[in-house]
Amino acid sequence: MYRINENYLKLQGSYLFSEIGRRVAAYKEAHPEKDVIRLGIGDVTQPIAPTIISALHKAVDEMGTPEGFRGYGPEQGYDFLRNAIAENDYRARGCEIAADEIFVSDGAKCDVGNIQEIFGTDNTVAVCDPVYPVYVDTNVMAGRTGRFDPAKGGFDRLIYMPCTAENGFSPELPGQVPDLIYLCFPNNPTGAAIRKEALQAWVDYANRNGSVILYDAAYEAYISEEGVPHSIYECEGARTCAIEMHSFSKNAGFTGLRLGYTVIPKDLKSGGVTLHSLWDRRHGTRYNGAPYIVQRAGEAVYSEAGKAELKAQVAYYMENARTIREGLKEAGFTAYGGVNAPYIWMKTPDGMTSWAFFDRLLAQVQVVGTPGSGFGASGEGYFRLTAFGTQENTREALRRIRSL
Amino acid sequence: MYRINENYLKLQGSYLFSEIGRRVAAYKEAHPEKDVIRLGIGDVTQPIAPTIISALHKAVDEMGTPEGFRGYGPEQGYDFLRNAIAENDYRARGCEIAADEIFVSDGAKCDVGNIQEIFGTDNTVAVCDPVYPVYVDTNVMAGRTGRFDPAKGGFDRLIYMPCTAENGFSPELPGQVPDLIYLCFPNNPTGAAIRKEALQAWVDYANRNGSVILYDAAYEAYISEEGVPHSIYECEGARTCAIEMHSFSKNAGFTGLRLGYTVIPKDLKSGGVTLHSLWDRRHGTRYNGAPYIVQRAGEAVYSEAGKAELKAQVAYYMENARTIREGLKEAGFTAYGGVNAPYIWMKTPDGMTSWAFFDRLLAQVQVVGTPGSGFGASGEGYFRLTAFGTQENTREALRRIRSL
Repeated sequence: MYRINENYLKLQGSYLFSEIGRRVAAYKEAHPEKDVIRLGIGDVTQPIAPTIISALHKAVDEMGTPEGFRGYGPEQGYDFLRNAIAENDYRARGCEIAADEIFVSDGAKCDVGNIQEIFGTDNTVAVCDPVYPVYVDTNVMAGRTGRFDPAKGGFDRLIYMPCTAENGFSPELPGQVPDLIYLCFPNNPTGAAIRKEALQAWVDYANRNGSVILYDAAYEAYISEEGVPHSIYECEGARTCAIEMHSFSKNAGFTGLRLGYTVIPKDLKSGGVTLHSLWDRRHGTRYNGAPYIVQRAGEAVYSEAGKAELKAQVAYYMENARTIREGLKEAGFTAYGGVNAPYIWMKTPDGMTSWAFFDRLLAQVQVVGTPGSGFGASGEGYFRLTAFGTQENTREALRRIRSL
Repeated sequence: MYRINENYLKLQGSYLFSEIGRRVAAYKEAHPEKDVIRLGIGDVTQPIAPTIISALHKAVDEMGTPEGFRGYGPEQGYDFLRNAIAENDYRARGCEIAADEIFVSDGAKCDVGNIQEIFGTDNTVAVCDPVYPVYVDTNVMAGRTGRFDPAKGGFDRLIYMPCTAENGFSPELPGQVPDLIYLCFPNNPTGAAIRKEALQAWVDYANRNGSVILYDAAYEAYISEEGVPHSIYECEGARTCAIEMHSFSKNAGFTGLRLGYTVIPKDLKSGGVTLHSLWDRRHGTRYNGAPYIVQRAGEAVYSEAGKAELKAQVAYYMENARTIREGLKEAGFTAYGGVNAPYIWMKTPDGMTSWAFFDRLLAQVQVVGTPGSGFGASGEGYFRLTAFGTQENTREALRRIRSL
């Protein structure tokens, strides 16, 4: 008789955003007349920019002709896109990353979930707390975390790095050295950014201790301050200790188009085996590349016209961030983030739990946010709002929140 | 110091099709004037059908408007597509599969590679020999196979089911009961089909022994004979023992668009846990759904106009299958398949090894096929040709092969 992967049974509850979706659906079912505003899941709302739409149409036309049709592409991505990424996201910033160190995929969520497979199941893993649940859950599924300990509010063998108002939402270098360290800056969910000197300290720590940093840079397009790195490869020595994941979802609205990429420098090796070769093998064996038309859309992101349109789109969302930050302040709440990130991380009022505040916001003013405790024990008492709504909805949501 | 996943080091050589790509590229570099015809990798050549192109354009237009824009979709796929699949691929064939038992993905290769994750690493695995390498390699990576044994020509703990001319390329029910059984019919690479009675015997075997059949139905659109099942769910009892994987690559030319689906009936359970719930959790945690525009393209596959266009496309390729089958026969070769499948499986002449014949075909007549030994030890001495070329190229390839 076959056996299931028992690690799945250790998973806590259902995936956070599915649970939110279920509660909102239940509320709307019971109150069909109410107008619910969603500032919960990190999904964008602005349509795909015109230059990208044109690139999609052009690629679709190609696929309909014998000359233009493309079947299986290179699993690692087409050169036109890998070159555009290398040029714009790295060389232009003085980072030494070659096009063939870039692996194009159907999104950062998949990459972030898959990357752990190339490591042994006996590696220790450190995550920030609060944390994007995918880092944790995929390691639970792989058997790296042990069981959930209700007393600890976390998994036995996982190293949690608390990020709270007390430490400015910046994790401290762990005393117990982890093998794998997940970092995400600008951070989801706290909206905190990291200064270059602080990130350099992490790179030095990893190189000193033989750890690998799995760096999630999904939100780099929202960085507005100087001295905040857009890539971990701006730090010296990152090529021997860091893997970086990028998304096209937040800078270009590709949440429904699906595109991302992962960088693995060839200098990153263990006992003579490069992680690049392992990931390359995984891509070749378990993946067939992102759709050609979507890769052409990705290329358009780096065109001059595309850049201009997306700069305006990011500015649009950052205006929402300002609306939320200032609106919460006026309403007497304490809030963080929203300067280099599209997320605002607020303290719940009156010591309410995160889910109690979620239910209250939904029931009383029909605004959906994300309960901080869904991101980990240290997120309890916090609540995440995102800047990805429309400006009209965002202003209306804050008007309602102020009326609470 | 972090450790890599040591199982990767057990993998044999590089992924078959990457190796073929490398040899062909080297040949073309050395002989730029030669015209190479590829009947190797199972990639289609006909452009995407007009009805599907229209659906893509329409969906792209939607994505460019505030009203039509879609961000994150349901990870399991949009209802419009799941319903179309349930109706056309199942209900219309008398199979009882609900829309929510269908998980849409970016391709059967990914699903076939990912599905093993929901099973424990201690399950025994049976594969046909020859076999599509992804079934084997993904289980090697997960640590289910043990080491490669050169004497056996295979992995220690893997159960190989030989499929040769002697048994009509139809595996026998294994004496040692496997927990997981990969079956692919119509078969890649042998082109063999399975009769309903024979598949029923597998279903009965699995139900009797507590095994799960992982059924790859990627080539069902090529079935031309009565009595050959298009889905394993045509067999009685399959809902309690079978998972089925489908591709849009071969019936609709989506190799570069990326779309597939996996069916997990809710009746398939172990100790009260449904495999459906595990896969659902995996989709929610590690995947973000196939692109909206590609799912709309998938929907168009099931429209009346789409069906008519794709029927013609399949007929076009099956004419190639006939050309290859008859051409090889005229040239004095022994060949199998090509009646219910787009693959022709030929014996190499004069006891040549598969790779020697590959090199000879490439060097002498510039035709690329796939060495049978790349699919497993029992594939040695065989060679695969695919019907996915253009009719012009296919006829020219056979003209050249006859001149050998």
